[in-house]
Amino acid sequence: MADPVRIAVTGAAGQIGYALLFRIASGAMLGNDRPIELSLLEIPPAMDALRGVVMEVEDCAFPLVRKVVTTDQPEVAFEGVDIAMLVGSRPRGPGMERNDLLEANGAIFTEQGKALNDHAAKHVKVLVVGNPANTNCLIAQHNAPDLDPANFSAMTKLDHNRAIAQLSQKVGGAVEDIDGLAIWGNHSSTMFPDLLGATVNGQSALEIVSQAWYEDEYIPAIQQRGAAIIAARGSSSAASAANAAVEHVREWVAGTDSVTSMGIYSSGQYGTAEGLIFSYPVTVNEGTPKVVENRELNDFAQGKIEATEAELIEERDAVAHLL
Amino acid sequence: MADPVRIAVTGAAGQIGYALLFRIASGAMLGNDRPIELSLLEIPPAMDALRGVVMEVEDCAFPLVRKVVTTDQPEVAFEGVDIAMLVGSRPRGPGMERNDLLEANGAIFTEQGKALNDHAAKHVKVLVVGNPANTNCLIAQHNAPDLDPANFSAMTKLDHNRAIAQLSQKVGGAVEDIDGLAIWGNHSSTMFPDLLGATVNGQSALEIVSQAWYEDEYIPAIQQRGAAIIAARGSSSAASAANAAVEHVREWVAGTDSVTSMGIYSSGQYGTAEGLIFSYPVTVNEGTPKVVENRELNDFAQGKIEATEAELIEERDAVAHLL
Repeated sequence: MADPVRIAVTGAAGQIGYALLFRIASGAMLGNDRPIELSLLEIPPAMDALRGVVMEVEDCAFPLVRKVVTTDQPEVAFEGVDIAMLVGSRPRGPGMERNDLLEANGAIFTEQGKALNDHAAKHVKVLVVGNPANTNCLIAQHNAPDLDPANFSAMTKLDHNRAIAQLSQKVGGAVEDIDGLAIWGNHSSTMFPDLLGATVNGQSALEIVSQAWYEDEYIPAIQQRGAAIIAARGSSSAASAANAAVEHVREWVAGTDSVTSMGIYSSGQYGTAEGLIFSYPVTVNEGTPKVVENRELNDFAQGKIEATEAELIEERDAVAHLL
Repeated sequence: MADPVRIAVTGAAGQIGYALLFRIASGAMLGNDRPIELSLLEIPPAMDALRGVVMEVEDCAFPLVRKVVTTDQPEVAFEGVDIAMLVGSRPRGPGMERNDLLEANGAIFTEQGKALNDHAAKHVKVLVVGNPANTNCLIAQHNAPDLDPANFSAMTKLDHNRAIAQLSQKVGGAVEDIDGLAIWGNHSSTMFPDLLGATVNGQSALEIVSQAWYEDEYIPAIQQRGAAIIAARGSSSAASAANAAVEHVREWVAGTDSVTSMGIYSSGQYGTAEGLIFSYPVTVNEGTPKVVENRELNDFAQGKIEATEAELIEERDAVAHLL
């Protein structure tokens, strides 16, 4: 059997963490032949709950799990890790302005970025799930100057999956018939779900659905899906976010020829400002996401992409003192 | 691709249900080549939450999921199902006596047994997870006279996994080095975790650990593990129970040569009263659990098995009017 992969998960006792750990531990992320070590980070008040979660992981007798470490110290959590899934973040509290939120999370991701820089394996793959994911990722990346910026990514896979599912429902097709669909920009309500390059059984999606449905129903539905889940369930997406995180890492490690969406360090592709963590249509080869080239973008798409880019630049400006 | 398997899950919006559905839908239970239809039952006050859960299942764009039905009617939920996972049950409320609990659940499992009898596929495999699982299973089975009693089982796989994990920790071995371990009797604090037939790397487990540790620490730790989880986590086992349910059904369908534990309809094996739903060491071949024969049982084991049998007979007597 292969050497164990060391995986850090932050916010491990939270709702997403709880949904995530058992899927990782069962082999759903890295395969049934890959032993793993889990390194779980929580804030001090959640350490008791985390111990309970670890007891449940033990109670599964997962053959792949070689070791579980729990800690409230990022330097301990990230020691030698191959993969870091940064799930924990400060949620928006009552009366908190957007800048307060960026600030509170800025502190967390500054500390975690430094700890990753100093303690993680140099090849570490870092996925940021905790919101605001793109800017949290940017902060962590800037605070880890010794790591390749390509090691950092933010999750837009949940938006991607939502976009696939909604299109599949509309056209009455199977999800595997859809290809090329992607999310551009920020994991926020400005994200742009792009159907221009999407096909259903090889036919252009925008030949099947109307532009009006696309603009007036589909895009808002994807952008506001998180709020709709909260309204129905009484709490925010957890299992579907965990599933997306599993798939993001699985595709990052194992590769994918199908187009998926990842927030990655922009080197200016499609005219986007360099150095943002920006979601693009990507494929993945040998552990490296590659932005799909030569996508056709009309004025509508270009406008949407510029809007989400503008939001990311604003967020970056708001945390400029941390970069 | 094969025909879809129709799977009913009751209590689908509860904590175990929430942990369970995404693992089923991802293919962890029946494999990545087996499309599925989910038929989800909840009580009327939980239907909104259930819709939220279904939205999250949609948001995963699982290729295997062909259809999701939600209902508060058992007859609808069980229509044509191949597998029924009865997770929902009435928990013990403040001031409820054991007989109140048996009575409240008796009503639920009587109705569900009748609905399974009249609507499920004749080959349906029914797993009862909701407590008191063995007696709930017995009630459902008795109310489904047209189904083979062998179609019904109660879950002791979580106890089994806990027993494996605790032994593996004690001896410092890997979980896959352990074989032959099993849980006898009732899924309750009288269950008997049997190390007599257990081996670690081929060596008898009871040559490695002392009888004192086995009796005074190990058995009580397994029997009281559920309470320990509640104390640490602040809520009862959910993800580990869901994992055990996934494994129980996976092994029931796909078979296993390794010894596992399942509460099944007793035909009197090892002198146990016939017709109880009793957990035995089993292997599974072509969808049929087979009790491991000729296990050596000393007086200690025999006494433990009789005690858990006596409890199951008491429970059966308490619900005799439903049988």
